[in-house]
Amino acid sequence: MPTITAFESSPDRGRGQARDMRVRWALEEVGQAYDVRLLSFEAMKQPAHLALHPFGQIPTYEDGDLALFETGAIVLHIAERHDGLLPNDANARCRAIAWMFAALNTIEPPIVELGMAVLLERDESWYEERLPILRNRVGIRLDELSRHLGGADWLDGAFSAGDLLMVTVLRRLNASNMLEAYPTLSSYVARGEARPAFRRAFDAQLAVFTAASAS
Amino acid sequence: MPTITAFESSPDRGRGQARDMRVRWALEEVGQAYDVRLLSFEAMKQPAHLALHPFGQIPTYEDGDLALFETGAIVLHIAERHDGLLPNDANARCRAIAWMFAALNTIEPPIVELGMAVLLERDESWYEERLPILRNRVGIRLDELSRHLGGADWLDGAFSAGDLLMVTVLRRLNASNMLEAYPTLSSYVARGEARPAFRRAFDAQLAVFTAASAS
Repeated sequence: MPTITAFESSPDRGRGQARDMRVRWALEEVGQAYDVRLLSFEAMKQPAHLALHPFGQIPTYEDGDLALFETGAIVLHIAERHDGLLPNDANARCRAIAWMFAALNTIEPPIVELGMAVLLERDESWYEERLPILRNRVGIRLDELSRHLGGADWLDGAFSAGDLLMVTVLRRLNASNMLEAYPTLSSYVARGEARPAFRRAFDAQLAVFTAASAS
Repeated sequence: MPTITAFESSPDRGRGQARDMRVRWALEEVGQAYDVRLLSFEAMKQPAHLALHPFGQIPTYEDGDLALFETGAIVLHIAERHDGLLPNDANARCRAIAWMFAALNTIEPPIVELGMAVLLERDESWYEERLPILRNRVGIRLDELSRHLGGADWLDGAFSAGDLLMVTVLRRLNASNMLEAYPTLSSYVARGEARPAFRRAFDAQLAVFTAASAS
């Protein structure tokens, strides 16, 4: 059974924004049970964890003699070894992987940049002036993504690992009101969140936070 | 023969920073000839190109009935179908793919953020105050990457698609002086740039710029 790592006490208070959520969801979609090893922020920067993850982050993934880091790579590994997250058709499989990279390299960076500014620059003199610039950068991508999605349920045919990553990336906007202007994308995220595998993964990570805050 | 798209007139004046460089390099590493279709900035936002690339960027990759976007996905597709960019050992292959995602989702975003600030915010009142914050974010990742690389030639065993993407991502720092403080990483980038396949790819994209500026 694979073992993943996650925050001992998630900074998002169990809202499913930490990246272990992506791996949990993928494992639930394919019906693969897993163990979780919880880490404090201090433990994440110690040599034992850095040997697994050069950037001292979570999640990692260990299965037998394989140790992996980077959420995208872990989700792809799970998707390649089980049915349910990548199409069988060779071209459709390539396109689903393209959407995985699009989620992580095209859509997520401006969303993270906006989130970092809200978190770290709120009291800076330039905050009010920069905020619309950052929101506009995100908005350009949301316009394009919404136009691509149109009336479809998922990004390219059936639900895939590309949708799994894209939905989790868009959920990072939950604390903003940006998705409200995009009913197409709001419905898309809701469709992802309604999947039983998403619910199971969400409940599992929430249970970690609830237990930590009760203790 | 596959066809990729590239800028008709590269904004980097042929310095190999546009993302077609990554795909050209991958194709050269595996010895696959390719065609290039050059696009103006206007053409990139037209419906014909948006049907290939939902975010209106370059490069795209077309081969028979397959059309792909996202550089990471295109490089992975090339690496999966040819020898030379991914190890044969299953675990080592997973780890090479992890480095592809690390280049694009962990290292590149703070580098792009720094580059965007230098390009777009140089005249803003907050520029001088924010610049060290952005450089520090990049520096943390460079510290970690340098520590991981240590005395090794490549990130994990033999040269792989992970190194190819990481070298091109680090080259985005060429206009800054940030790599000078990291001899390990400077040597790593130089090692990538010395590969014959890199040189051929670099010369090919430079020739496009030279021809465009002569006409």
